[in-house]
Amino acid sequence: MTDTATGASTTDEQGRYVIPGGEFTRDQRYIATRITADGRDGYPVEPGRYRLVVSRACPWASRAVIVRRLLGLEQALPMAVAGPTHDARSWTFDLDPDGRDPVLGIERLQDAYFARFPGYERGITVPAIVDVTTGKVVTNDYAPMTIDLSLEWTAHHRPGAPELYPAALRAEIDEINAVVFKDVNNGVYQCGFAGSQRAYEAAYRRLFARLDALSERLATRRYLVGDTITEADVRLFTTLVRFDAVYHGHFKCNRQKLAEMPVLWAYARDLFATPGFGDTVHFGHIKSHYYEVHRDINPTGVVPAGPDLSGWLTPHGREELGGRPFGDGTPPGPVAPDETVPDFG
Amino acid sequence: MTDTATGASTTDEQGRYVIPGGEFTRDQRYIATRITADGRDGYPVEPGRYRLVVSRACPWASRAVIVRRLLGLEQALPMAVAGPTHDARSWTFDLDPDGRDPVLGIERLQDAYFARFPGYERGITVPAIVDVTTGKVVTNDYAPMTIDLSLEWTAHHRPGAPELYPAALRAEIDEINAVVFKDVNNGVYQCGFAGSQRAYEAAYRRLFARLDALSERLATRRYLVGDTITEADVRLFTTLVRFDAVYHGHFKCNRQKLAEMPVLWAYARDLFATPGFGDTVHFGHIKSHYYEVHRDINPTGVVPAGPDLSGWLTPHGREELGGRPFGDGTPPGPVAPDETVPDFG
Repeated sequence: MTDTATGASTTDEQGRYVIPGGEFTRDQRYIATRITADGRDGYPVEPGRYRLVVSRACPWASRAVIVRRLLGLEQALPMAVAGPTHDARSWTFDLDPDGRDPVLGIERLQDAYFARFPGYERGITVPAIVDVTTGKVVTNDYAPMTIDLSLEWTAHHRPGAPELYPAALRAEIDEINAVVFKDVNNGVYQCGFAGSQRAYEAAYRRLFARLDALSERLATRRYLVGDTITEADVRLFTTLVRFDAVYHGHFKCNRQKLAEMPVLWAYARDLFATPGFGDTVHFGHIKSHYYEVHRDINPTGVVPAGPDLSGWLTPHGREELGGRPFGDGTPPGPVAPDETVPDFG
Repeated sequence: MTDTATGASTTDEQGRYVIPGGEFTRDQRYIATRITADGRDGYPVEPGRYRLVVSRACPWASRAVIVRRLLGLEQALPMAVAGPTHDARSWTFDLDPDGRDPVLGIERLQDAYFARFPGYERGITVPAIVDVTTGKVVTNDYAPMTIDLSLEWTAHHRPGAPELYPAALRAEIDEINAVVFKDVNNGVYQCGFAGSQRAYEAAYRRLFARLDALSERLATRRYLVGDTITEADVRLFTTLVRFDAVYHGHFKCNRQKLAEMPVLWAYARDLFATPGFGDTVHFGHIKSHYYEVHRDINPTGVVPAGPDLSGWLTPHGREELGGRPFGDGTPPGPVAPDETVPDFG
């Protein structure tokens, strides 16, 4: 199956997300090269050498955007933001002057993929890290990517950077990440791209059963694992923040809105108000991407004007549960001027 | 333009609801023949002579279902319920044994249209009233239809039937019906079938501005006009009861759910709990119809499993506003055994 640009989603040769009669299967073959402190894959951590390419629309890329900012890696790992929509083959730098990334000098992310793998046939996905010295993609493997930002890039973390993947909690974080991925992060896509009623309903049941379990878990604890923000919270947040804007209607994840699930809604607002989370979210990009790109489930391309997003800023009351958001660390400072997002843009 | 079976919606020759680049325009040319007490159009009111054909999915037909029951016309005007989905040309009696209406003896509503108008080219819509003696359709003009049930069929109303269109309030009822039709009843369709972002957003703005105005009006009064249930409440109810189940997601009417608009939500629950309203609603038929039939905005035909409907039965507290639901009349009795609907079916 030939994939296309989908922010780590999977389409068939016709660019369809929905396979009639079937269920949505995410192609999980990514470029597994890793950037590590010891450079064992040929790509050592080196400030300024790489460029993180993201779309703010994409939940998988948004993990990296958040983690990079929480850890203060903005200078060490500069970021290129692709536009929210893309054509059949590639994310594009249409937000930049002349439609070209000013550092990589390319219009389309696929050029960086092709520079390393001519004729690359799998998805041209974000997040991707590109080696600026060669213009070649290094990796698009989003799951290890954020872990490596935590564990391999430590020399370049800001003072006060939190431990998002602390050794003592890794087993628990991995365990929750696995079920959150299956039932929630990917589960919403399995609802939305289901090719049959049966596949949809199975995904819907798993999704809401998991959200109920997470609600129960989070009713008495401020964060998913331990008493500080971890990688697990980042991964759940990037799905929750998109829930009412796109997954509820567009993907038919509509038992309730997030805003009707009190514990998860308060948890998501708590994170949203935490520096490094809400200040990376571009709702305009999110809505534009899902509704304009997935024409096989939204043929008109019309983007809903709702939902009213003002509720995101209401008090969440989660401080009462205690917790130390950044553990022994501190919150990140203000967003760099060239990386700000509009309020509810 | 050739219309097709749409429960009074309008499609083009290809059966499309959405005209790319344009706005949704409802074909409002109906069969204007009226059934009256004096029989001036050749169709006098006569108990048992006619058959009301509806779909419980359709908001326009549901007006007649509710009014018929509020007035106790079940015996005088028997009802045929078509299945929730239909093919390109006609509603069908696929809920009946052998797929045939037991009284009219036809499988497809269009047969009754063709019997009177061979080659009838406009929409084969519900509600329709068919003359059982000839098998010919009399009218499908839904707006005067319910008024005529109130004013022309009085001789056959049950004892205690309410006055849904009292003379003293007609001007006010007509005025509110006009804006509710334009901005709400039809407005949701203009959102959902908009062929351009601009047409969608204009309809969305009108819809929610009107819902805000209605919320304000209903904050201090129990019903829309006067202090009893009138035709105006019936017409607003049939859209509100579908709002979260279909219009919010499928038609992108998503500033808020009805359940997030406290006054309208309580008003709708109050009516839902009133005999003659909620006991006519078949949510399964509603969801099935919109999501399975409108393939040009939902190509997969997958029907959402949500929303959770249990909130419809929660206390609404509107009794505090006073009002006399049935005026000097009484509520209708239990639903006839052959007309019951499943709870949240």
